Amino acid sequence: MTDLIYTYLRDKGFKFINSLNGCRIYALYFIGSTKVSTIPGVSAAGAKPELTLYTPACDVEFLVYGKPKSLNAIPVTPEGIPTPALITRACIKLTELPFNVVDCGSYVEPKIPHIKLPSKYVGELITTGHALPYERVKALFNESSHLAKMLGKLADAIVVGESIPGGTTTALGILVALGYNAWGKVSSSSPNNPHNIKEGIVKEGLKGAGLSISECREDPFKAVSALGDPVHISIAGFLVKALELGIKVLLAGGTQMTAVLAIAKHLGADLSKDVVVGTTRWIIQDNSSSIISLIQEVAPDVPVVAAPLDLTNAPFNGLRYYEEGYVKEGVGAGGTTIVTILKRPLNDVLNAIYSEYSKLVT
Amino acid sequence: MTDLIYTYLRDKGFKFINSLNGCRIYALYFIGSTKVSTIPGVSAAGAKPELTLYTPACDVEFLVYGKPKSLNAIPVTPEGIPTPALITRACIKLTELPFNVVDCGSYVEPKIPHIKLPSKYVGELITTGHALPYERVKALFNESSHLAKMLGKLADAIVVGESIPGGTTTALGILVALGYNAWGKVSSSSPNNPHNIKEGIVKEGLKGAGLSISECREDPFKAVSALGDPVHISIAGFLVKALELGIKVLLAGGTQMTAVLAIAKHLGADLSKDVVVGTTRWIIQDNSSSIISLIQEVAPDVPVVAAPLDLTNAPFNGLRYYEEGYVKEGVGAGGTTIVTILKRPLNDVLNAIYSEYSKLVT
Repeated sequence: MTDLIYTYLRDKGFKFINSLNGCRIYALYFIGSTKVSTIPGVSAAGAKPELTLYTPACDVEFLVYGKPKSLNAIPVTPEGIPTPALITRACIKLTELPFNVVDCGSYVEPKIPHIKLPSKYVGELITTGHALPYERVKALFNESSHLAKMLGKLADAIVVGESIPGGTTTALGILVALGYNAWGKVSSSSPNNPHNIKEGIVKEGLKGAGLSISECREDPFKAVSALGDPVHISIAGFLVKALELGIKVLLAGGTQMTAVLAIAKHLGADLSKDVVVGTTRWIIQDNSSSIISLIQEVAPDVPVVAAPLDLTNAPFNGLRYYEEGYVKEGVGAGGTTIVTILKRPLNDVLNAIYSEYSKLVT
Repeated sequence: MTDLIYTYLRDKGFKFINSLNGCRIYALYFIGSTKVSTIPGVSAAGAKPELTLYTPACDVEFLVYGKPKSLNAIPVTPEGIPTPALITRACIKLTELPFNVVDCGSYVEPKIPHIKLPSKYVGELITTGHALPYERVKALFNESSHLAKMLGKLADAIVVGESIPGGTTTALGILVALGYNAWGKVSSSSPNNPHNIKEGIVKEGLKGAGLSISECREDPFKAVSALGDPVHISIAGFLVKALELGIKVLLAGGTQMTAVLAIAKHLGADLSKDVVVGTTRWIIQDNSSSIISLIQEVAPDVPVVAAPLDLTNAPFNGLRYYEEGYVKEGVGAGGTTIVTILKRPLNDVLNAIYSEYSKLVT
C-alpha cells in the first residue's frame, strides 16, 4: 500500500500492512472513562467536562446506529466538528468490516450489543495517585487476555481502537511512572495541547502514589493502578495474548498506544513482530506531540503507519476543522482507515466520510 | 462425516456438515433466565429450583475457567451428573474453537468477558401470559440482529448454543402460541419428562395472554412477549440476520431450537438453506420427546444432525447417567461436538470429556 504514510520503520511497516491483504480482520474498539476527563481543560472530547463521561458510549452507539443513544445530541461540537467515530463508521460501512466494542469501564453503558469485561471500572482522578484498585487492574488485564483467547484464531488480524476522553493524560501518567520521558509528547484532541495541565495532574499523581520507576517496571500493574485508567491495561491484556497466539495487531490510535506498548513490554511481551501502530496523518504531523519520539523510547521495534486522510477539501466546515488540529484521532479512526484503503480507494473513504457527515447535520 | 447421525433430511444435512470443512467457525452461547425454571418440577438444571437462576452464568464461567465463579459449587448434581457445559468445554479446548457468550437476560451476570445485549431481561413467569414486555422482545431481536451484522462475514459458520433452564417450557409456550401441536414433544433435562407440569403452565399462560394463533403468526413478538423468554427471541434475531448475510448457522440444541425456527419462520426468514439443527444422540433417541415431529411441523426444510456421543463406557458414574436420560443437551453440547469431530476423532472427544470430568471431581 503505497498510499499510506510509513512514518517509522518504513520497510517493516510496509511488510506488515501488505501481509494484511487477504487476512480476516476484526476490529475491536475498547472504551472506558477516567474522571480525569472531567478536570476542566483536559479533554476537548465533549461539549462540557462532565459530558466527556458520555463520549465513549455515544461514540460506539454512533458506530452502530449512526447516532448516539445515551445523549440526545448530535456528536459534533458547537463549531460542527464531528467525533472521529464518524470516520470509523464510514470505513466500517464501506467494507463491512466486522467489529465489536469492549467496555472496560465506560461511565455510561453503551446501548448497543457489546463485549463487557466484568471488572469494568471508571478510573478515578489520578491526582490522588490511586486511579484503580490494584486487583481491578489485574482483573481487567486477565479478562481481556481471556477475551483474546476466546476469540482464538477466528481473525488473522485485529484492529484495536480506543475511546477514552482524558486518555492522553493517563497515558502520560503510565509512561512517566514506567520511567519514560513522555513530558510534552502526548497528543491532544485540541489544537492547543494543554501540556501544563496534564503535567500538573501527573506530577500530583506521582507524588500521591509514591512509587519508584523500578517498582513500576517490575510490576506495571502498579503504574496503572496509580496513574492509569481501565482502557490501556485492557488493551495491553488483549495485545499480549493475541501476540502469543500469533495474531497480528494493529493498534489503532495515537500517542496513547505507546502507553499500551509500555505496559506490555514490562510484562515481558515480545513486541518485535506482528504489532504496528496505525494512526492518522494529523497525529504524525502534529507539532504539539511526538509519537515517534515516544515509540523510539518505548518500543523501538514497532512501526508506525498513518492513514493519509486529508479533509482540506471537505465540503463541510466541521470536517475542515480537522486540518486545524482539532480531534486528530480516536475510536480507531486512523487504523480503521488503513485497513479500509487496503480494499477501497482513499477517495471512496473521503466520500463516505462526507456522506456520513451530511447525514449527521441534515 | 459418516460418524454423525443424520436423523432428518439425511442428504441435505450431510452436505451442510461437509460444507463446514475448512470454514471458519465461531460459537456463540446465548444465555438467559426465565422465572419458569423456579417452578418446582420444571427444570432439573440446578440443585434446587431457585438455583436454576444461577445455572446460565455458572455454565459459561465453567466454559472459560473450568469452574463456576458465581456459585461456589462444582457443577454436578448430588449424583455427580455434570453440566453439559463440560462436553462443550472439552470440545472447545480440543480444537481451540473460537467462542463467546451472549447474555440476553441471565439472572446472574456471568463473571467472564461476554457480549451483553443492552435490553437483557429475565423472563417472568409465563403463567400470567406476560413473559416479557413487548418492546423488550423487539429490542432483543433487533440487538441480536445487530450483533450478527456487526460480526458480518468474520466467520463462515456459527454454532449457536443456549443455556436457559426452563427453556423447553417456554419453547412449548412459543410453539403452541404460534399454532403448532407441540404438546408432549419438547424434551427435558430429566429422565422423567414433566409434560403435565409444562402443559399446565403453558395452558394457564395461554389463557392469561388471550391471543389468537393468527395474531401470533402475524406478529411472533406477541407470542414471545406472552409465553416466551429472552433467549429464543435473541437467537432468532441472530439467525435471521446471519442467514441474510449468507452465514451458515448450526443451531446447537434440542427441541428448543424448533421454537427459534418458528419465530424466524413467521418473521419471514428463508429457512430453506444454510441452517441445520445439531444436537445429541440423547435427544434424537429420547422417547419422551420428539424433535423430528416438531421440525417436520415447524421447519420441514431444516435437517437435524446428531453427535454420536455415547457415555456407556465412561469411567465415571456421573457421566454414565447421561445414558439414563439425564441432561441430554445444553450449552450447545451436541452442535459443538459435531464441529469438533470434523477435525478430531470422536474418541479424542470422549477422552477430553473424561479428563475434564476427572478434573472437576478430584
